[in-house]
Amino acid sequence: MIVVPLGVASATPTAVRHLPSVALWREGSVFLFDCGENAQMRMLQAGIKRSKIEAIFITHFDVDHYSGLLGLLATLQLQRREKPLHIVGPKGIKDFVEWNLKFADIDANYEITFHEIAEDIESDVVHDEDEYYVEARPLKHTKFCVGYRFQEKDKPGKVDAEKAEKMGISKDEEFKELKAGNDVTLDDGSVVKSSDIVGHPRPGDSFAYVTDTEYTPNAVKLAMNTNILYHEATFGKDLNDKAGETGHSSTVDAARVATEAQTKLLVIGHFSARYTNEHDLLKEAREGFYPAWLANELRPIFTDPMHERGIITPKVEINEIDKKSGGSNYKGKKNYKSGGKKNFRSRKGGSSSRGRSSSRSSSSSSRGRSSSSSSSKRTDSRGKSDNYKRKTYGSSTYSANIKDKKDDSDSSSPRKITPRSSYDDFDRF
Amino acid sequence: MIVVPLGVASATPTAVRHLPSVALWREGSVFLFDCGENAQMRMLQAGIKRSKIEAIFITHFDVDHYSGLLGLLATLQLQRREKPLHIVGPKGIKDFVEWNLKFADIDANYEITFHEIAEDIESDVVHDEDEYYVEARPLKHTKFCVGYRFQEKDKPGKVDAEKAEKMGISKDEEFKELKAGNDVTLDDGSVVKSSDIVGHPRPGDSFAYVTDTEYTPNAVKLAMNTNILYHEATFGKDLNDKAGETGHSSTVDAARVATEAQTKLLVIGHFSARYTNEHDLLKEAREGFYPAWLANELRPIFTDPMHERGIITPKVEINEIDKKSGGSNYKGKKNYKSGGKKNFRSRKGGSSSRGRSSSRSSSSSSRGRSSSSSSSKRTDSRGKSDNYKRKTYGSSTYSANIKDKKDDSDSSSPRKITPRSSYDDFDRF
Repeated sequence: MIVVPLGVASATPTAVRHLPSVALWREGSVFLFDCGENAQMRMLQAGIKRSKIEAIFITHFDVDHYSGLLGLLATLQLQRREKPLHIVGPKGIKDFVEWNLKFADIDANYEITFHEIAEDIESDVVHDEDEYYVEARPLKHTKFCVGYRFQEKDKPGKVDAEKAEKMGISKDEEFKELKAGNDVTLDDGSVVKSSDIVGHPRPGDSFAYVTDTEYTPNAVKLAMNTNILYHEATFGKDLNDKAGETGHSSTVDAARVATEAQTKLLVIGHFSARYTNEHDLLKEAREGFYPAWLANELRPIFTDPMHERGIITPKVEINEIDKKSGGSNYKGKKNYKSGGKKNFRSRKGGSSSRGRSSSRSSSSSSRGRSSSSSSSKRTDSRGKSDNYKRKTYGSSTYSANIKDKKDDSDSSSPRKITPRSSYDDFDRF
Repeated sequence: MIVVPLGVASATPTAVRHLPSVALWREGSVFLFDCGENAQMRMLQAGIKRSKIEAIFITHFDVDHYSGLLGLLATLQLQRREKPLHIVGPKGIKDFVEWNLKFADIDANYEITFHEIAEDIESDVVHDEDEYYVEARPLKHTKFCVGYRFQEKDKPGKVDAEKAEKMGISKDEEFKELKAGNDVTLDDGSVVKSSDIVGHPRPGDSFAYVTDTEYTPNAVKLAMNTNILYHEATFGKDLNDKAGETGHSSTVDAARVATEAQTKLLVIGHFSARYTNEHDLLKEAREGFYPAWLANELRPIFTDPMHERGIITPKVEINEIDKKSGGSNYKGKKNYKSGGKKNFRSRKGGSSSRGRSSSRSSSSSSRGRSSSSSSSKRTDSRGKSDNYKRKTYGSSTYSANIKDKKDDSDSSSPRKITPRSSYDDFDRF
């Protein structure tokens, strides 16, 4: 799965932050969590096809969280969408969409199915498919607000084909039976047990979206053992009181939820406009939980970078959320293509996260070397500020991974997209 | 007056074009024509205070033209606005705003006065103040749509103070009488005629906003003798038929309206997403009318550049509407500050527009020289593409003006803002 923050502002946009929306890409389908103003354009800029949207999940009815919904629906209409669309939100969402479509004189040529969430639920499975489901739980805000957890269902264990052949399995049907969990009796009467051939089921990936809430146990339940927890951190710890008064979280709250839920990665977003440098918030969050990252608009966050990188490529420059470096921008598309020759962030990553990834990966022989050789070429002032950042905040294991991979291949050739394959045992974080 | 295009897309945003909205700045007040998605953020980015909005004029109820309205109203609420706001639009606008504010549970702490335009009007003065008025006329679209003309009322003629003194006028009250058009009898019994001292009344500036329409005489009426006509040019002339079918204009239609209305400047916008290089559309428009310009998002267009430049300064980079150069961006704020040392577009301008401005201005001695000296420093590939562009499309008289002015002063000092003063006889175009 790939999580792409489309907007990380709270309440009102700043010159560089859009209103809240987060896209989740999974196996070619897209799910939108909140739909702040201009979400449709941010998707386009992120390189995510709007036609691939399966469902939209609205958390609550503060204008900033749904003001992009109508524009998006109008664009889907223009695109002549025919595939049904699911819209999930607190009770009233159906009314809102239908009233406004009627006002705009739009007779949608695609079916919209609504799932409205009642205020008195403990939890609610709002979307259920073969391979995943989405669960909602009420949060604690000034108005009714829900958080969501997107959960892939368990995937079947791996089949040990070699062992199966040795035990006499040769036909496809027999393999299928074993995979489905059934034992197979061979022609000679011997029984091959499914459990001998098929490994343990592998847990699915999960993503929790928790925003516009004070600390609440429900947030922890949603985030429990997730791969990625996207949690609001509207305020720093100096404004903990204000956070409580306005029904929001501080960096401390976000870290607390992440810690209690033992999520694998905390991503903080929904920043108050008063913070021009979000890294200050990240520092605070990291005091309470590690690994924590910043939601950076349009920059993808992967649950499985080895398989998923290259699938979503931003179509515009990504604004680095760091004013200190004076606008040293990561040029998304351009540099992906040019093999990272120029401006590509070759951040080494904090030593801890670096160590983590190296100790696990099977293809990390030349990592440190290739990474440092490219960074040593940088002698301009921008390079210096990058170095500074590397020391202070560096933790981009994924950027480093991409870079390393590229250095292994011919760096002047166009970037190769690794085809999507079934999950392997690569440890995600 | 200053016209700032906030979004120049049509129907659906592209990766670089926002949905339709144009801000008009006049003497510290702001007027918004249409309010496409994200208009509130674009205003912020353009450096236009949202608190200064006096009135919002919506042309029609295609979603792209009003999808930013609700978000803007919510932000004004957050800003604790108290000043009344005028919202003008076709009948139904009041219903739309009130229903949606109620849905969002917003009890506006500022008064909203609505002016709803009936479908059967010939013309309608929708906003009338001491110094200006706004007129609406129906256009020809697939649904009811109006165009607007913002007209400053005539300004009193200039008082020739020297001549008045010679004729014996010394007191402030006497000046005021003359200014108001009354003759003054001096102590010695001689009469000083107002018409001897006060010049002809000067016509006010005007701006017409015509979008989402086929050619219609009403567009010409709205645009008659305007300083600036902002006219849609959704299609090129190759798609003239399609323009008619969909109730839109081609470049040919836009030029026709401008010609018939004898507007001083045609600005085309509202481009179909199929055109990645709008300069092709500009070329076509210029075949029919000159001077014509492109609406470039966030780049201000002045009726009086000598007095108005510096008032609105974009807070973000302005995207040059030209894909050929591969993203060589004009860095708005940065370069304004740094004196245009880096990346500043020092386009010489087409010889014709260049000649026009030089022949009029009183401070153009070192223009050609300073401009070429800065461009000769550019030796990288980007510089080359700039040179190429300069030859092909160059016409940014105003950019050149700003640049020239800066070269006259100390280029390392912050940019000086010319204070606003009363109108003089500087010829605007």
